[in-house]
Amino acid sequence: MRPVLDDSVRLTDEGVLILDRRVFPAREEWVLTRTAGEVAVAIRAMVTQSSGPFYAGLAGLRLSARLHRGDGLDTALQALADDGELLTAARPTNNHVRDAVREVLDAVGAAGSADELAELVEAETARLEAAYRGGSAELGRLTTELIPDGARVMTHCWMDAYLIGLVQQAELAGRKYEWVVTETRPYLQGARLTAHTLAEMGQPLTLITDSTAASVLAGQGALGSVDALVTAADRVTMDGHVINKVGTLSHAVAASAFEVPFYALVLAPDRTAATASDVVIEERDGAEVLSTLGSRTASALVERGYYPAFDVTPPEFVRRIVTDRGVFEPARVGEYHERQNR
Amino acid sequence: MRPVLDDSVRLTDEGVLILDRRVFPAREEWVLTRTAGEVAVAIRAMVTQSSGPFYAGLAGLRLSARLHRGDGLDTALQALADDGELLTAARPTNNHVRDAVREVLDAVGAAGSADELAELVEAETARLEAAYRGGSAELGRLTTELIPDGARVMTHCWMDAYLIGLVQQAELAGRKYEWVVTETRPYLQGARLTAHTLAEMGQPLTLITDSTAASVLAGQGALGSVDALVTAADRVTMDGHVINKVGTLSHAVAASAFEVPFYALVLAPDRTAATASDVVIEERDGAEVLSTLGSRTASALVERGYYPAFDVTPPEFVRRIVTDRGVFEPARVGEYHERQNR
Repeated sequence: MRPVLDDSVRLTDEGVLILDRRVFPAREEWVLTRTAGEVAVAIRAMVTQSSGPFYAGLAGLRLSARLHRGDGLDTALQALADDGELLTAARPTNNHVRDAVREVLDAVGAAGSADELAELVEAETARLEAAYRGGSAELGRLTTELIPDGARVMTHCWMDAYLIGLVQQAELAGRKYEWVVTETRPYLQGARLTAHTLAEMGQPLTLITDSTAASVLAGQGALGSVDALVTAADRVTMDGHVINKVGTLSHAVAASAFEVPFYALVLAPDRTAATASDVVIEERDGAEVLSTLGSRTASALVERGYYPAFDVTPPEFVRRIVTDRGVFEPARVGEYHERQNR
Repeated sequence: MRPVLDDSVRLTDEGVLILDRRVFPAREEWVLTRTAGEVAVAIRAMVTQSSGPFYAGLAGLRLSARLHRGDGLDTALQALADDGELLTAARPTNNHVRDAVREVLDAVGAAGSADELAELVEAETARLEAAYRGGSAELGRLTTELIPDGARVMTHCWMDAYLIGLVQQAELAGRKYEWVVTETRPYLQGARLTAHTLAEMGQPLTLITDSTAASVLAGQGALGSVDALVTAADRVTMDGHVINKVGTLSHAVAASAFEVPFYALVLAPDRTAATASDVVIEERDGAEVLSTLGSRTASALVERGYYPAFDVTPPEFVRRIVTDRGVFEPARVGEYHERQNR
């Protein structure tokens, strides 16, 4: 079956419908956004995350162009650029929305009217989404080559299209994996999104708390060991730093200490980020740590939580970075941009 | 003020009252146990943990001797031994209850009647509790010497008497610390017990998720760096392995990678455990991972969780082990038993 989360952003006559990942799978609720600005607000509020902002960003650009079909070309173009900025600014750490906005703006340069602009946006966003899905499948194929049949794979947070691609490609290659999923506080994307999607796809899985990961990577306890740690990367710098959901660093350091390979998946390293200091690490409201899915779980006396959404894993803790142009040692991932797509 | 958790086991005419740490501080509920066997069941069920089972175990032994005051000496002695076994078996990883039972049984050898036995148990359990509290203060004093004034200290789970001792000794020494507390899923002892008690004692603290610890230990993000990682140890082996709440390994490995000293506190290494394989690591019901404080938080499709309550930190990731006979390099902690109490 197609996982619910693989089709979680829909452009309708009313606007962009976004599956609310903050409550899924306990509830299946869709948030209706009527402008690109509203899409940006929803992204900022975590209605969708991981690959979701990319899909929502593309839909937001289509919506922008559609809403300005009746206006002059300059107005439509300016609106598209403004909306692109709003969408890019919604969350600073992942670079997919930013890059998509740039590509769409490049593609509409030849438009002679607002109508034509809308058609070009339609075509370019469709191309980008297909490329993203195709790239995700390629990441899955390359990762499958690194992980033998019968392996147990640990993953953190929610890899979205990359995870779906990996499961599908493993099936094509006739490889069966078992999964160890970290729950990923505070939003519990692992417990809710990853575990749910793996179960939908018929994959055997065991859920652990985030702080159990090191013990499992060390091969302690009844569960036994894991053969690989695999996560997505929200951003990879040209010198091989991996920026991803907070906790990735923790697991990567433990994987390195106990000699479990860590594979980080990203379509491409970010040409504009030479190293980690070039990337803005989003810090979200520390109050998120005081609650769990909306219910207070910390002592009422606690006043201050701290929640950086991402952490930075230095290249020495990463075995390989898997991109849509092949597999790189972290220190050499900058060579990506010299390589051709296969 | 005296923290609520510093007085969480009370022997009354009705039996042993134990503060229910599973719901504290959201609710202050006391579980009444009428026999030592019921105390053991409460310990097994996590009504109390950390130092709690030690206090409850002592109270259970007093209760046992009191209930058999009217019986013959042999009956009372046999009951005390049987109850001691029940209390010891309640949870396998921490060795304090086991050692206390042994000391109490040694101390009652001279009893000439069940009445005398009850008085000896009363005296010996009082001595053991005073020694435990005194030892905890000494651990605090020694740890304070390792951590300079103004330091920021990260701690995991709930150190109980050791934490209270550390805060009190730091105050006596005129040192002020700031605290970073990991929430400690699945039971959230950090978010509920540690954070609450530190706040009661007027300590400034910031709560983080378990998976944020590595990022903080690496000094990433706005919170800034920490100067030390301090945890209790449920057991320390003679060759310097630290067994403590799961997640300790994760934080210790990260602390080691980013050169933050990790200090593990224990009254004494366990003479009967040469190395980690001599210690039973308790594995609790994996369903604990699927919920948070009683509410389901994982996807309904998830069938299997895995929850080892403890992990093993090898000595190479531990800077020092603080005992009531001084501070040891992990590899030399076995020398504890050659040293005298100060």
